Amino acid sequence: MNKSRLEAFSDGVFAIAITILVLNISIEDVSYADLSGALIGLLPKIFSYVMSFILIGLYWLGHHFYFERIRQVDGNFVLMNIALLMLISFMPFPTFLLGKYPMGQLPLTLYGCTLIATNAVSFLMLVYIYRNQHLANEHFKNEFYKLQLPLFFSINAMYAAGIACSFFWPHISYAIYLFVLLFALVSFVRRMNDSVKNK
Amino acid sequence: MNKSRLEAFSDGVFAIAITILVLNISIEDVSYADLSGALIGLLPKIFSYVMSFILIGLYWLGHHFYFERIRQVDGNFVLMNIALLMLISFMPFPTFLLGKYPMGQLPLTLYGCTLIATNAVSFLMLVYIYRNQHLANEHFKNEFYKLQLPLFFSINAMYAAGIACSFFWPHISYAIYLFVLLFALVSFVRRMNDSVKNK
Amino acid sequence: MNKSRLEAFSDGVFAIAITILVLNISIEDVSYADLSGALIGLLPKIFSYVMSFILIGLYWLGHHFYFERIRQVDGNFVLMNIALLMLISFMPFPTFLLGKYPMGQLPLTLYGCTLIATNAVSFLMLVYIYRNQHLANEHFKNEFYKLQLPLFFSINAMYAAGIACSFFWPHISYAIYLFVLLFALVSFVRRMNDSVKNK
Amino acid sequence: MNKSRLEAFSDGVFAIAITILVLNISIEDVSYADLSGALIGLLPKIFSYVMSFILIGLYWLGHHFYFERIRQVDGNFVLMNIALLMLISFMPFPTFLLGKYPMGQLPLTLYGCTLIATNAVSFLMLVYIYRNQHLANEHFKNEFYKLQLPLFFSINAMYAAGIACSFFWPHISYAIYLFVLLFALVSFVRRMNDSVKNK
Repeated sequence: MNKSRLEAFSDGVFAIAITILVLNISIEDVSYADLSGALIGLLPKIFSYVMSFILIGLYWLGHHFYFERIRQVDGNFVLMNIALLMLISFMPFPTFLLGKYPMGQLPLTLYGCTLIATNAVSFLMLVYIYRNQHLANEHFKNEFYKLQLPLFFSINAMYAAGIACSFFWPHISYAIYLFVLLFALVSFVRRMNDSVKNK
Repeated sequence: MNKSRLEAFSDGVFAIAITILVLNISIEDVSYADLSGALIGLLPKIFSYVMSFILIGLYWLGHHFYFERIRQVDGNFVLMNIALLMLISFMPFPTFLLGKYPMGQLPLTLYGCTLIATNAVSFLMLVYIYRNQHLANEHFKNEFYKLQLPLFFSINAMYAAGIACSFFWPHISYAIYLFVLLFALVSFVRRMNDSVKNK
Repeated sequence: MNKSRLEAFSDGVFAIAITILVLNISIEDVSYADLSGALIGLLPKIFSYVMSFILIGLYWLGHHFYFERIRQVDGNFVLMNIALLMLISFMPFPTFLLGKYPMGQLPLTLYGCTLIATNAVSFLMLVYIYRNQHLANEHFKNEFYKLQLPLFFSINAMYAAGIACSFFWPHISYAIYLFVLLFALVSFVRRMNDSVKNK
Repeated sequence: MNKSRLEAFSDGVFAIAITILVLNISIEDVSYADLSGALIGLLPKIFSYVMSFILIGLYWLGHHFYFERIRQVDGNFVLMNIALLMLISFMPFPTFLLGKYPMGQLPLTLYGCTLIATNAVSFLMLVYIYRNQHLANEHFKNEFYKLQLPLFFSINAMYAAGIACSFFWPHISYAIYLFVLLFALVSFVRRMNDSVKNK
């Protein structure tokens, strides 16, 4: 299995999943008089659209960071990659639910669980490279792995807190998801800015 | 972050967004006797399809012009690029609205606002390269930036005029959008023709 | 404008248009007892699916043949390419109509007109390269152009005959479309087989 | 016809088909009170989603193995490749049916038939390379062909058994499909693991 073809295929799946998110944003067959009401009713869907768009974008960036640090892939890694893509491709559905029932306990839980599962698979891939360093290339540093370790656990802990909150205070649950997103976004952007500066 | 992988991912998103525009063109479950009426009723949707198809095509060309002139990307640039892709991916929805309520004030406004936002992000990316010239390559000329500056402002001013018109004379608003499209199309085609001649 | 990026973008649009054809194949919410009837009722949709799938595949092959023979693209060529992609992306809609009203005069006409328009744009691109040979590379032979000329006219004449027949004998119209498809398919496959043998 | 462009186009179709599988997972317009029931009712759809996702992933891997072993493609091979892509693109529909009527005889049969047809086309492509070794490169070993031969027949025999079972014991039919999937998955992963170890 050629690493670059797996990368191109994965890129395709990421690009499609991120783009079909918009199919969730639609309105029923309303008369023009009711359109403004229908558009205001869409706001939670647009909110969940933006959130999932950025999240899938970040997972794509994360995927890219991994693939930059590997030299070749074996069967187990390809399998984990398929599992990751399956979860990414699934994202439009929890996004749809969260847009439709924005403060519902079930949608918040399903959204959080999907993200935890995605992070878990993503992290397993990293552990796998760490333990099978013949798959890694010279860009893979054990420090990178050790840096990611607490990050993964803290993000998943926050998602778990978000799920727990969804039973009692759905607004806080939603706020936690947003906070994690913002946190991940800022740390990604900073790290990429630094890597350009350090060149 | 590797420039060419960001480019390939962006190309994928552009290609998907432009192709799923067609999903807006559909007819209700009508008997064959009513089909010709239903097809005539589709004309505004086909009109908005053509308009958005060419617009996304032009944004894709513009994206290409930028990426030809950069050497590397940093985190801020990737973030702006994700925002741009989010707006491009969103386009099928305002296109759907404009096709469904072709002279409606709200759809015209939403369409215009989406285009202004897309132009604004697009322009921010250019400003960012101009101010961080270590990201640019030898093809980036400050003249290019100075040429684009008035273009961006005049196009956005026209879109703003289109939005203002949508409250009083929706047909003029629609006509303005078409005029801007035609204007941008012609100037893009000319510039590309010239760049081949000058080789 | 870089030829290979235009090629990649076009490939993406072709691949998406061909794949979303399947979205036309769907059944209403029927009870399991009525499923076999509903599936039999799908046959015209599956038929039009297969026909359009192969057609888009052939247009993709044709696109590839052109791009193999060009060295660079200018603005006019990019514009024609966008028009071609717009027609290809539009294909799912006439395919849907033809599947829904398989012997209807309107769907047969719309299907034929879309194909004629696609061929016309495709042919214009060829004429344009022929007249602007600085865009062509060493693989472009004027014999190739002269070979395509009668082919384009005969195929479009057959489509026009198919459209004319749709008013009186829709079955013959459908049969003509199938015949053209088969004819184009066989000649494409043969030509590709020969080009491998001649290497 | 350039092998790598056919590969890229095929990758695109595989990536889109695998990603739009999620469009089958949707719920009717239910009140929030009925949401948990609606989500439980989705389980068969999620099950068929996972199954088809992995299957398309495996076909993509198989496609990759073939293309790694060929040097060039001729018209017949391109034609078989289009037939393969058509069957892959069709997969969302049997997946949808299987999700909607999970133990229905018709969906189980259609699912099995689609897989048999996909395997048959896939196998024909291998036979074709075996008989036209000027298309193969140095990675194509006749042993590879001889290894695949019994595999294809046993997998198709199992699918045929699954179809036969669907008339009497649908659960067993479903279980057979799952078993074949698991079997193919494990053997693929192992083979890929070995090929890395042997490097």
